Amino acid sequence: MTQPLWQKSDSKVDARIMRFLAGNDVILDREFFLHDIEASKAHVEGLANIGVVSGDECAGLLRELDALAVDFSSGSFVLDDRFEDGHSAIEARLTERLGDAGRRVHTGRSRNDQILVATRLWLKEKLGTLETLCREIAGVCIERAAGDSVPMPGYTHIQRAVVSSTGMWFAAFAEAFVDNALRARQAFDWIDANPLGTAAGYGVNVALDREHTTSRLGFARMQVSPIYAQLSRGKFEMAALDAVGTALLDTRRLAWDLSLFTTAEFDFVSLPGEYTTGSSIMPNKRNPDVVELLRASYAAVAAARTEIEQLLSLPSGYQRDLQFSKGSLYHGFTNGLAALELLPDLLARMEWKAERMRAAIEPAMYATDVAIEQAVAGVPFRDAYRAAAETAASAGDGRTPESSLAARVSPGAGYDLRLDALRARLTRS
Amino acid sequence: MTQPLWQKSDSKVDARIMRFLAGNDVILDREFFLHDIEASKAHVEGLANIGVVSGDECAGLLRELDALAVDFSSGSFVLDDRFEDGHSAIEARLTERLGDAGRRVHTGRSRNDQILVATRLWLKEKLGTLETLCREIAGVCIERAAGDSVPMPGYTHIQRAVVSSTGMWFAAFAEAFVDNALRARQAFDWIDANPLGTAAGYGVNVALDREHTTSRLGFARMQVSPIYAQLSRGKFEMAALDAVGTALLDTRRLAWDLSLFTTAEFDFVSLPGEYTTGSSIMPNKRNPDVVELLRASYAAVAAARTEIEQLLSLPSGYQRDLQFSKGSLYHGFTNGLAALELLPDLLARMEWKAERMRAAIEPAMYATDVAIEQAVAGVPFRDAYRAAAETAASAGDGRTPESSLAARVSPGAGYDLRLDALRARLTRS
Amino acid sequence: MTQPLWQKSDSKVDARIMRFLAGNDVILDREFFLHDIEASKAHVEGLANIGVVSGDECAGLLRELDALAVDFSSGSFVLDDRFEDGHSAIEARLTERLGDAGRRVHTGRSRNDQILVATRLWLKEKLGTLETLCREIAGVCIERAAGDSVPMPGYTHIQRAVVSSTGMWFAAFAEAFVDNALRARQAFDWIDANPLGTAAGYGVNVALDREHTTSRLGFARMQVSPIYAQLSRGKFEMAALDAVGTALLDTRRLAWDLSLFTTAEFDFVSLPGEYTTGSSIMPNKRNPDVVELLRASYAAVAAARTEIEQLLSLPSGYQRDLQFSKGSLYHGFTNGLAALELLPDLLARMEWKAERMRAAIEPAMYATDVAIEQAVAGVPFRDAYRAAAETAASAGDGRTPESSLAARVSPGAGYDLRLDALRARLTRS
Amino acid sequence: MTQPLWQKSDSKVDARIMRFLAGNDVILDREFFLHDIEASKAHVEGLANIGVVSGDECAGLLRELDALAVDFSSGSFVLDDRFEDGHSAIEARLTERLGDAGRRVHTGRSRNDQILVATRLWLKEKLGTLETLCREIAGVCIERAAGDSVPMPGYTHIQRAVVSSTGMWFAAFAEAFVDNALRARQAFDWIDANPLGTAAGYGVNVALDREHTTSRLGFARMQVSPIYAQLSRGKFEMAALDAVGTALLDTRRLAWDLSLFTTAEFDFVSLPGEYTTGSSIMPNKRNPDVVELLRASYAAVAAARTEIEQLLSLPSGYQRDLQFSKGSLYHGFTNGLAALELLPDLLARMEWKAERMRAAIEPAMYATDVAIEQAVAGVPFRDAYRAAAETAASAGDGRTPESSLAARVSPGAGYDLRLDALRARLTRS
Repeated sequence: MTQPLWQKSDSKVDARIMRFLAGNDVILDREFFLHDIEASKAHVEGLANIGVVSGDECAGLLRELDALAVDFSSGSFVLDDRFEDGHSAIEARLTERLGDAGRRVHTGRSRNDQILVATRLWLKEKLGTLETLCREIAGVCIERAAGDSVPMPGYTHIQRAVVSSTGMWFAAFAEAFVDNALRARQAFDWIDANPLGTAAGYGVNVALDREHTTSRLGFARMQVSPIYAQLSRGKFEMAALDAVGTALLDTRRLAWDLSLFTTAEFDFVSLPGEYTTGSSIMPNKRNPDVVELLRASYAAVAAARTEIEQLLSLPSGYQRDLQFSKGSLYHGFTNGLAALELLPDLLARMEWKAERMRAAIEPAMYATDVAIEQAVAGVPFRDAYRAAAETAASAGDGRTPESSLAARVSPGAGYDLRLDALRARLTRS
Repeated sequence: MTQPLWQKSDSKVDARIMRFLAGNDVILDREFFLHDIEASKAHVEGLANIGVVSGDECAGLLRELDALAVDFSSGSFVLDDRFEDGHSAIEARLTERLGDAGRRVHTGRSRNDQILVATRLWLKEKLGTLETLCREIAGVCIERAAGDSVPMPGYTHIQRAVVSSTGMWFAAFAEAFVDNALRARQAFDWIDANPLGTAAGYGVNVALDREHTTSRLGFARMQVSPIYAQLSRGKFEMAALDAVGTALLDTRRLAWDLSLFTTAEFDFVSLPGEYTTGSSIMPNKRNPDVVELLRASYAAVAAARTEIEQLLSLPSGYQRDLQFSKGSLYHGFTNGLAALELLPDLLARMEWKAERMRAAIEPAMYATDVAIEQAVAGVPFRDAYRAAAETAASAGDGRTPESSLAARVSPGAGYDLRLDALRARLTRS
Repeated sequence: MTQPLWQKSDSKVDARIMRFLAGNDVILDREFFLHDIEASKAHVEGLANIGVVSGDECAGLLRELDALAVDFSSGSFVLDDRFEDGHSAIEARLTERLGDAGRRVHTGRSRNDQILVATRLWLKEKLGTLETLCREIAGVCIERAAGDSVPMPGYTHIQRAVVSSTGMWFAAFAEAFVDNALRARQAFDWIDANPLGTAAGYGVNVALDREHTTSRLGFARMQVSPIYAQLSRGKFEMAALDAVGTALLDTRRLAWDLSLFTTAEFDFVSLPGEYTTGSSIMPNKRNPDVVELLRASYAAVAAARTEIEQLLSLPSGYQRDLQFSKGSLYHGFTNGLAALELLPDLLARMEWKAERMRAAIEPAMYATDVAIEQAVAGVPFRDAYRAAAETAASAGDGRTPESSLAARVSPGAGYDLRLDALRARLTRS
Repeated sequence: MTQPLWQKSDSKVDARIMRFLAGNDVILDREFFLHDIEASKAHVEGLANIGVVSGDECAGLLRELDALAVDFSSGSFVLDDRFEDGHSAIEARLTERLGDAGRRVHTGRSRNDQILVATRLWLKEKLGTLETLCREIAGVCIERAAGDSVPMPGYTHIQRAVVSSTGMWFAAFAEAFVDNALRARQAFDWIDANPLGTAAGYGVNVALDREHTTSRLGFARMQVSPIYAQLSRGKFEMAALDAVGTALLDTRRLAWDLSLFTTAEFDFVSLPGEYTTGSSIMPNKRNPDVVELLRASYAAVAAARTEIEQLLSLPSGYQRDLQFSKGSLYHGFTNGLAALELLPDLLARMEWKAERMRAAIEPAMYATDVAIEQAVAGVPFRDAYRAAAETAASAGDGRTPESSLAARVSPGAGYDLRLDALRARLTRS
């Protein structure tokens, strides 16, 4: 590793301790490196605006930062454990190429605000992706809800309850993912504040052009307080994970439905072949592994959140504990988004088995319809309920799944799915 | 207990099992009871609008519901384990007082949407309280930041780093609680959807006037899908807990600061006497117990969130597992809000010990100022840094805490706290 | 409330703050009160042994402590918020009844070790109950595994895989709960150390007879270090919760099985009527609510663990944060043990539907048998597997569930359940 | 990637889905690969014992398995995404080298029991390491407690309470890590059961020699039930993580102490230079980063536990969700053990600043001594306490830290640290 930035000549470094300190930090920094470069450009411009670097130096630094981004993306520059971290790598490269101009780049900033701003930009990008994916999923669900809808049993307690429909099922997840998209947007807005220029948490004795870096990096506002910038580390990460977790919670319930619907016992759904796998020992098996991993993906988000949450019992001011938040964040978002990416295709292509579902609709599932009809006709509901319970076995006489759905006129149910309201929320927001 | 609503004449009930089923559910329902009554009134009006109850019946039901609310609030009606739950208690009371009209009240609704709407109203109330408390805390912090500000050491790694000030410290928590207030508002907006009228999760065959109940109960929108209404149980509770958790995370860090600042070693802060307690064995002790419980209060929110999170690995459709979410929610919010309620007074009245803090500012804490001054004067920062490291011990020569703060001109630091920006966000939102 | 023990005459007390400090602490202390009295008796005897209280005083104190236990159990003494906590209540009562002897009782102890020892005794009692319940559950499972065993489908991925049996199913949970009983015992042994006599965490200048209190209270060893006694608070609680959590993890999976097996789609099991409930709106429903709450009960244990875990990011030495561990502990154990208590009866009385299960065994489920037969006969397994996959549909030709089970001769499977090994572990431990 | 073992000729494979299915599974399998090979050798011997492979085939398979282990360790065989997983890689290699003998190796086993046994062996190895590290740490602490002990302030609520000593501090962590070593051992014993031979969770129709594989692999017992073998996945992993978590909880509190003790305000401890680092912006800083990362390391264990816990809400039988447990386990153990590995050296070499600590012992810290002396002399303790409170400021008259410690005669305190009891437990267990 290159000598740490802070290394004094007289102090010893122990390899095992350095390894513990570094962890896989520099590897993780690859994830944030392009954002770090982007923020470095804004910082350099800000320094130029206040005369700390000259116009020529600024131009050179911007050019070399662009070149570094290109080299990194193409693989000709590899960020590895030659460097203490990504931040040091940037300064080292600029110094190597530009000498004193490179040695000026860290004026008025600390690695504390450097990682904050890189992470913040990364979070915004990921929350944007999250919102887009949620919208896509909601869109597919609305489309399928609006298409052919066939009757299926509706369950409570995984017990057959009343007649439902595939349209109602898709409309439910449509509304869920409209909400999830909005939550991603809320989280985005909430964290959309620029921490660059807060240095090590107390500001600096140079009039950094924070307005410039804020607008240049596309932030909606400046994060004003340097101490708060540090306090927001982990806090903002958790809020972002909350947003991805919300989407994964619904994914888990959706996957549970599909897991049951693809059993031999339910047999309501068939999945495209690519979504199933075989067994190493049982020749007869085709398993819905993808659905199971979709169900399981929430766990990674929960783990990431737990890890960061555990780090945050601290007084104010940066503390090294916070370094561990990077790996967690990466783990949670990578796994969470990977799961969501599969949903649009899976939902678009899964097929309902209409006959199987119709066959699972039993006569007693019309008993609620009977009781409410009686209630509307004037029998007190509780009496109608008791009467319907007695005659549940014959509740289906003269009724069909379609007639039950047609009569289900409470808003949002039956054939009144109110998809327009969902479409409107998806568009408006 | 009165006979359950669903009890059939031929089935046996086992006392131990009934106890397990009930848990302390009916006791918890006290918390939600007034909201349940309020939603029942809206439901009754909706039934009247579509002719399921007559105008007279409606008037009677509304009157008795109001009377029940009064009796409950005054203690003359006690919700206890004579009833299966709060929902059953309402129907029992209305039936006792009004006969058939009472037996009609459950037409078109299920306890599933009844608890959903009562909880939703409760959550909105609590999130409103959360937002108000966060605003109050932010307000106190802004005021104190704007008042006398005295120098104090700024820490990173709990190591003395650079000169800071009490104004900077308060401004940090001001911005934190502005953000926290906004997050409470975001959560409020996100869950502000009416689930009443979705029945057991599949709607009903009667054209419930959901527009009426939505506006009557003050919801911003209807939760359209009945299946989604059920999917949102737990999901919305978690989002609400995330909001209170965010405020408690900052409370924990603030409490950590105060815990350290009130040690004999730091001795930067004195708390009003009421915030400290004594020891049963050590006559000499005055302990900052309140501060410690403030620090600890995050744990209750985390526990509540964990409990609900653990319940939600389920297929769609109501399942009894969700019953446990009520107790968790109550636990998390009650403890979380109780902690926040103490903060405004504590923050307003805590006193800084200016001399102790000034004495803790060491000469080497000006070294960063020196390095950056050099950098501004043209020395490449990395070189200036190395030079300042050599001469750190004399970095304070000719400097005072006040001069350091006066020179700290990066936006948000020193004397440029930008409290107006914080005030503006607090007002605007 | 009575004046706190530590109250100095000149300090003010604020009601709202006192409420926050107290929480529902004194109510919770009811749970630990008898253990607190028991430990107080041992402490008093120890003080007598070293001459700090006289023989007469000792006799009086023991008599009054016994009387207090009787009064508390009968309800004639109520522990409520007249007292700061249970510990203060004991001292107040003894002082009221015995004057100076009562004022001597706290010599050499602190509320810190008083709550530690009471909690420790409580934990041992609960872990004992946990072990007993696990043994009972294992016993029922072994008995049912040893009784009539009928074929059922074996699942992986909730997909029909190979022939299994009810005997194999019960044997699995038998082994699970043998392990769970052992883990309860391990936890019991691990925490079986006496903290009484460590005072506020640093010992005292009186030669407390810790050997006496250790043996008198039935502890296996003394917890030697006073500082460690404090460090073990929360740590030991978590270990105890880990043990109950382990049993609940298996309960959750067992409940999941029953939840599926009682659906109309599987329909493999019928539960005694008392274990099901009805719906308030759907007359036709009988829901396996108990099974769902059994599944959900893990959540309470997880929440309790989370709450305590969140409290423990602290330096050494008692801190008030730890007070919150009591409520969590109570919540986790109460809910966890309540669930386990229902299992023996439920498992003993649930009934398998043999015909339904037999009908669910499809021909392709013999394909693995075919492949392995071929492998034993000399065909390389991977080739046999591929051949069996081709002919899976006819794999059942000439085979029955019973013949498949009879041929399942790997130890632990088929008819070779090795229940003796489980019985032996249950006995030996 | 090579074609999956279960791939049928007619099914399509989608690259994106395969990536999602695979995750970084094959990379993780590197961690378990040598154990997989070891278990494969035992399995092959078992097959030879029952005649499924010939003696020659067995010899060949064992030779090639050894060769594979050597090649893997030397890096000449790389386990990467050419393979679906480590299990497939072994079979592919054996088949490539030995033809039919290789194709026979999977007879009677499934990847389900293959990963179970490899993970189990890995867990045993790691728990062994954990126990060893805990013993080492306890050993260092005992040694330092037995060495020069100097007075230091004892804290409760981070407030100066009574006189303590460095000997008492080290003795506390000694006892903590004796307990932690025992818990590692308990976990080891609890999971020490062989799952190999349970196949996909239902056993097989070949009389596998499970006694041989059990003893050959060094397991204390056979895990009898095939269904339970599957149920134990995740459950056993959590128990192992609980053990490492326990040690990390104490590490966190120890690190908190050091974090405070190395502040300028306390300044009780100096760390070897290698354990501190500098700042990129503040020339004056030396930060105890290692101590902070030690404190933070618990978070990784908590995250791992959360991730696995979240996966386990499932019916019985293998489900793909469980695949994610591998990464979590690796994350938790790797980070947890890395932290513990640094402790022996750190604890052996940290230096107390005796003068600083002595100066922090205030007169009032003797007040408890005074009160108890009075109590022993016959004044009721509560009266003595009140009197001592009045005169706390002069409590130190005629007392020294050493005299206070000398009088601290309750077992475990002062100079009676009872290290022999700790040594005895460390040896005996």
